[in-house]
Amino acid sequence: MTDSETQKVHTALDNFRIETPSWGFADTGTRFGKFLQDGAAIDINDKLADAGQVQAFTGFCPSVALHVLWDFPEDKTPGDIVKLARKHGLRVGAINPNLFQDQLYKYGSLCDRDQAVREAAVKHLLESAALSKQTGSQIIAIWLADGSNYPGQANIRWRKHALVETLRTVHEALSAEQMMLLEYKPFEPAFYHTDLADWGMSYVVAKEVGPKARVLVDTGHHYLSQNVEQIVAWLLDTGMLGGFHFNDRRYADDDLTFGSIDPYQAFRIFHEIVFFGWETGQEQQIPYMIDQSHIDKPKIEAMIQTAISAQELYAKAAVVDHEKLVRHQERNEQIDAEECLRKAFFSDIRPLILEWRKRHRLPPDPLAAFRESNYEIRVAKERKARRAELGLTGSGSYA
Amino acid sequence: MTDSETQKVHTALDNFRIETPSWGFADTGTRFGKFLQDGAAIDINDKLADAGQVQAFTGFCPSVALHVLWDFPEDKTPGDIVKLARKHGLRVGAINPNLFQDQLYKYGSLCDRDQAVREAAVKHLLESAALSKQTGSQIIAIWLADGSNYPGQANIRWRKHALVETLRTVHEALSAEQMMLLEYKPFEPAFYHTDLADWGMSYVVAKEVGPKARVLVDTGHHYLSQNVEQIVAWLLDTGMLGGFHFNDRRYADDDLTFGSIDPYQAFRIFHEIVFFGWETGQEQQIPYMIDQSHIDKPKIEAMIQTAISAQELYAKAAVVDHEKLVRHQERNEQIDAEECLRKAFFSDIRPLILEWRKRHRLPPDPLAAFRESNYEIRVAKERKARRAELGLTGSGSYA
Amino acid sequence: MTDSETQKVHTALDNFRIETPSWGFADTGTRFGKFLQDGAAIDINDKLADAGQVQAFTGFCPSVALHVLWDFPEDKTPGDIVKLARKHGLRVGAINPNLFQDQLYKYGSLCDRDQAVREAAVKHLLESAALSKQTGSQIIAIWLADGSNYPGQANIRWRKHALVETLRTVHEALSAEQMMLLEYKPFEPAFYHTDLADWGMSYVVAKEVGPKARVLVDTGHHYLSQNVEQIVAWLLDTGMLGGFHFNDRRYADDDLTFGSIDPYQAFRIFHEIVFFGWETGQEQQIPYMIDQSHIDKPKIEAMIQTAISAQELYAKAAVVDHEKLVRHQERNEQIDAEECLRKAFFSDIRPLILEWRKRHRLPPDPLAAFRESNYEIRVAKERKARRAELGLTGSGSYA
Amino acid sequence: MTDSETQKVHTALDNFRIETPSWGFADTGTRFGKFLQDGAAIDINDKLADAGQVQAFTGFCPSVALHVLWDFPEDKTPGDIVKLARKHGLRVGAINPNLFQDQLYKYGSLCDRDQAVREAAVKHLLESAALSKQTGSQIIAIWLADGSNYPGQANIRWRKHALVETLRTVHEALSAEQMMLLEYKPFEPAFYHTDLADWGMSYVVAKEVGPKARVLVDTGHHYLSQNVEQIVAWLLDTGMLGGFHFNDRRYADDDLTFGSIDPYQAFRIFHEIVFFGWETGQEQQIPYMIDQSHIDKPKIEAMIQTAISAQELYAKAAVVDHEKLVRHQERNEQIDAEECLRKAFFSDIRPLILEWRKRHRLPPDPLAAFRESNYEIRVAKERKARRAELGLTGSGSYA
Repeated sequence: MTDSETQKVHTALDNFRIETPSWGFADTGTRFGKFLQDGAAIDINDKLADAGQVQAFTGFCPSVALHVLWDFPEDKTPGDIVKLARKHGLRVGAINPNLFQDQLYKYGSLCDRDQAVREAAVKHLLESAALSKQTGSQIIAIWLADGSNYPGQANIRWRKHALVETLRTVHEALSAEQMMLLEYKPFEPAFYHTDLADWGMSYVVAKEVGPKARVLVDTGHHYLSQNVEQIVAWLLDTGMLGGFHFNDRRYADDDLTFGSIDPYQAFRIFHEIVFFGWETGQEQQIPYMIDQSHIDKPKIEAMIQTAISAQELYAKAAVVDHEKLVRHQERNEQIDAEECLRKAFFSDIRPLILEWRKRHRLPPDPLAAFRESNYEIRVAKERKARRAELGLTGSGSYA
Repeated sequence: MTDSETQKVHTALDNFRIETPSWGFADTGTRFGKFLQDGAAIDINDKLADAGQVQAFTGFCPSVALHVLWDFPEDKTPGDIVKLARKHGLRVGAINPNLFQDQLYKYGSLCDRDQAVREAAVKHLLESAALSKQTGSQIIAIWLADGSNYPGQANIRWRKHALVETLRTVHEALSAEQMMLLEYKPFEPAFYHTDLADWGMSYVVAKEVGPKARVLVDTGHHYLSQNVEQIVAWLLDTGMLGGFHFNDRRYADDDLTFGSIDPYQAFRIFHEIVFFGWETGQEQQIPYMIDQSHIDKPKIEAMIQTAISAQELYAKAAVVDHEKLVRHQERNEQIDAEECLRKAFFSDIRPLILEWRKRHRLPPDPLAAFRESNYEIRVAKERKARRAELGLTGSGSYA
Repeated sequence: MTDSETQKVHTALDNFRIETPSWGFADTGTRFGKFLQDGAAIDINDKLADAGQVQAFTGFCPSVALHVLWDFPEDKTPGDIVKLARKHGLRVGAINPNLFQDQLYKYGSLCDRDQAVREAAVKHLLESAALSKQTGSQIIAIWLADGSNYPGQANIRWRKHALVETLRTVHEALSAEQMMLLEYKPFEPAFYHTDLADWGMSYVVAKEVGPKARVLVDTGHHYLSQNVEQIVAWLLDTGMLGGFHFNDRRYADDDLTFGSIDPYQAFRIFHEIVFFGWETGQEQQIPYMIDQSHIDKPKIEAMIQTAISAQELYAKAAVVDHEKLVRHQERNEQIDAEECLRKAFFSDIRPLILEWRKRHRLPPDPLAAFRESNYEIRVAKERKARRAELGLTGSGSYA
Repeated sequence: MTDSETQKVHTALDNFRIETPSWGFADTGTRFGKFLQDGAAIDINDKLADAGQVQAFTGFCPSVALHVLWDFPEDKTPGDIVKLARKHGLRVGAINPNLFQDQLYKYGSLCDRDQAVREAAVKHLLESAALSKQTGSQIIAIWLADGSNYPGQANIRWRKHALVETLRTVHEALSAEQMMLLEYKPFEPAFYHTDLADWGMSYVVAKEVGPKARVLVDTGHHYLSQNVEQIVAWLLDTGMLGGFHFNDRRYADDDLTFGSIDPYQAFRIFHEIVFFGWETGQEQQIPYMIDQSHIDKPKIEAMIQTAISAQELYAKAAVVDHEKLVRHQERNEQIDAEECLRKAFFSDIRPLILEWRKRHRLPPDPLAAFRESNYEIRVAKERKARRAELGLTGSGSYA
């Protein structure tokens, strides 16, 4: 590796941050049930403690995305949560409203035909916006599960209007520093039509809603074979990229650890971002967030694994020789241009990461170090007991 | 419609039966939660009562598939269940074991590395086989959720061997009249690899297991764009078609009502079956079973709707002029051959269905008649009260 | 069928027009070769004569889309072509430039890195725009095959800029009556990235280019399982729907006859359009164009078949009871709302089409009448001889 | 890298061979046209000369797959071809019949309703089988393009019978050393149904045809998201894996260079093979063949690039620590098992490949060395002139 490459990797590692999601530390599952883990987090305190572990061992996961419904108990103020996060070496990241769980939202939230439902949803978003201010995160990340299950069921255009109108109300309440991110998803839980089904829909709505609205790219929310890095490049070019939810998948929104199925695609997404920065000189402050569902992997280990995978892929993207790449692109020398990416992807940047860790007094192997700490064994024991005390049984049945 | 066509439709209607699934009357949902219905069935009594309604109003849904884990409470013998079904004008249909819900099955059931887990799964299957004998259904319909979530996690070949070996044990316990159906599914809940992922895998395993094993086709369990009717034709030809789970979908295994998204495909599946019967003179006794998840549609109404849709599409398939079709196929007259199918699909067979209903003293519009009966309103009231008494709250949280 | 429904169908039939493509009358194939038909059109005269047959027998296909490269021979002026069309009872429809066939376009046309290539492409588009004026069609339908085959090969953002810049030049040359339609396609012939890959990209570029640019929806150019009718509804709502290329497919851009694989989806697309018109009172003048590749079906017969299929599906969409639909949608009565669509789709509108044909002195069965005319047999003989004279051999080898 | 790993890689490199396809050196394209290269091979002599270059610079591509229709001119005996190959340091590899190009095959070949067509196809296969004997390759690799474009057009079961019957005739003519490989493909050029659409169909037919029939896996011939490595594992387990056609793709059968889109999947396929060999002790002699269409990449360079990519990925698969992997798999330690694969995939085996090249007196960078040889420039000049002499113009038009 040349000195210049080494330097690029070091800079990349110094700049790279990724946010962990509080819900990634709790038990999750599929519609067929949850496989419970003794060590899974029960409450916000557990989640922040676990996220603190990830940060302690990796050094680049300083913030935690929170879920309004699950992470702000009545007996805690937003200030309490901020303090709690700080105690674990963290700050509060994106605030995620919940517009899908309440029975009220059976036929939608912001797009429901019933004004009362829409108002309830808007109220929840306004509260979420307030929380994002109070916790200092400034980001409200909206995933809209709205849609319909059968042809004819919904007036698609009416719902689009309702969506823009309700989001405008929320948009007005945002301060200049705040940002509203609009996530898209092709299907699930709505099976026939989803109101924000692809990046184009999020883009159109964001444009109609206002300048504080941006598009959120969840890597698992695309049609099969879709070129995600091209979408990222276009969103960068139009100034509409608001942030990422990282995960991987084979078929649908499988929420697997990042880069576990198609690491080259993950690398190409990072490449487009780094390349954009290099060409435009614009420093990107893109919120990189993990959004995964570690159904059977141990939660904290999975989070460390996915974070490191992201870090490695980002560092590899930094190794791309942009001058060379551009030269070959200009001349349509496609094999040479392609090899610029392949070379970087397969380059061994792990020695540099080891160096970086050493310099930051981080363990050389975060996963091994975490395991040696026996943290999980300890909390599993305590949480198991606490669950029993609280009468929490994870039982659940599909039907 | 010619006399011959009329006769074909009448015969088709007289022969057509479709089985409803007990779990289709209970609350189900997505991994993001369940939207609860007051009228949803709570226990096996409710489910059979509801299925009895479907049969009473449609006249061709005389059996109910049962789910071992959910439908055979300890205080009831198989004989009790048979009697209960009979009380509601029904007989017991396919017995569905459950190899996915228990925490034991975190990494698989029949394919798990742990012998104790495999033995537990085999034991459950043997009990299911016994139940299928005792209830007279003779069919044990196995959906194997086994698989893995990450590359490398599983020894794919080892698991295949385990699967064949365990199924052979079950196969040996079957009587000559019994049948073991092996369902395949490309993904969910296993996201990287599913042990029975496609029809080829079910076929290979069924062949290795023994003559009482067959392939079960769930219409929603295919890759996007896969030609399902061709698979059906091949399974018919090889004598390996064991039965159907009917539903529809747009993206994954969405479990929507049958024919709601792509009715022409559903029709083509029926066409292949009817055509096979016409060509070979073999009377088909294929178990047609509904397997759907009426997330937000009222359960009984949705079941009536889907059953009628299946009946109509089957009747349309009966209208295909096989002599003409064969003649055009032989001559490669593709437009004419195609039009044989299109003509039948778009033919209006509803007057004939009305006649058939009249002859069988069934209401002309089963859905309207069911609604007029106010059954759902009555049971919703009673079940809501019962739920409160039992302390059942449908609450559930994704994380 | 009620009087009101009958009236709706009559109005729909009176308004429905669909344009045939000149290239649909010529031999086409797959990359593995072409299967030649004696009766296939050789030149523009043949194509217009054949399209004239389709119009003569169906009565609602009065215009023909032309392909600049293939249909404007040097020895004919645009005026000659218009006259020739008129002779066959036709007018000239959309003008289709060709930006993919010339060896120049190996790495793209409007997006190529070489300015000379981009200028050649712009020149061709300007000529096409002129032709669209001279022939009176006013529409220039741009399908951009540009893209790249390998990761890294292309600077995606640079190409987007080039695209907007070159299209602006063309846009400036358009008169107020002219319209530039931008077609999108996820893949083929570019396999890694396509510069206009989805509706969102066409939308963004159209917006950046100017008010005479719109989005063209080719029904076969979508990801598997994508909800096309939702895209149509959004484009209608944003005023950006420019027109359609109709065809059907199972896997990719198979260019099969319209409604041959999934007629219910085709119906739903028409439904969204008719519903939009009903709700907004805006009369839609959407250019409906057929874009198919009748690889092995006889060309003219296939065109008649597909046109009639479109007409039937459009008439079915007109039958939807919008008042009822809206009422059920407002109340979230999803089964009833869905049944509004199903009822219309399965309604037998053929008697009304027969009436309409009678009233317009058209044959009751256009396909049968065309066959009885022996047109194809006659032209096949003549064209075979002409091909021999011209020394045209359709031979082609994949490699 | 440990000594043991180094040893494994050396052994892997010594054993790894991959076959190049003659047609990969000629001009190919999409249905929209071919972009011609001066340096593209014109005839079998060119193709073998070019393949000889690939072997000369890489050292592990000693055989060339031939295409009966394109590579055996009338003026050359099979013996001539063998000699010509030897002259270029090569031997003849798999023989590929052509059952799709002749106008005869419009509606199929082995599955056509017309006995004369089927007989012609069988005759061609018998000739191909003879050629495979005479050239010493022993492998006849059958890709069957047969299928239909529209529902109803074909009697799917009749065609399956015809397929088995005709293949049996060919099978009988094979010697004990010969092997018949059956390739499957989900679509293209048949768009509604393909007679051998998936691995299950090839498997069933191979089993019905006889013991010399096996399944050929073309990596690009799968449904989107299908787990190809699982299919490979099952075919290995059942003894039915006959060989590979390697390429990569994003959407359909894009025939891109191997590993260019999803190198991790390619690696996982190799892993399943190497793992099978390690577990069973069975030495695999799997024919690895490249089947690509280098539409715009320079032919020989692309072939060198893809071969090296395959070699690297195979060497990486050899690095997997099988003992460790098995141990973690047995204990369901999924993160650790997964990391066995990830570690191997990202391990830098290029220094070992450099050593191996040095030891075999091969250039350290085959692509650079080939370019320095100026071979392509020389042959391009000569071939351009020869094309002009022969009056070959690559012009072709879609319609």
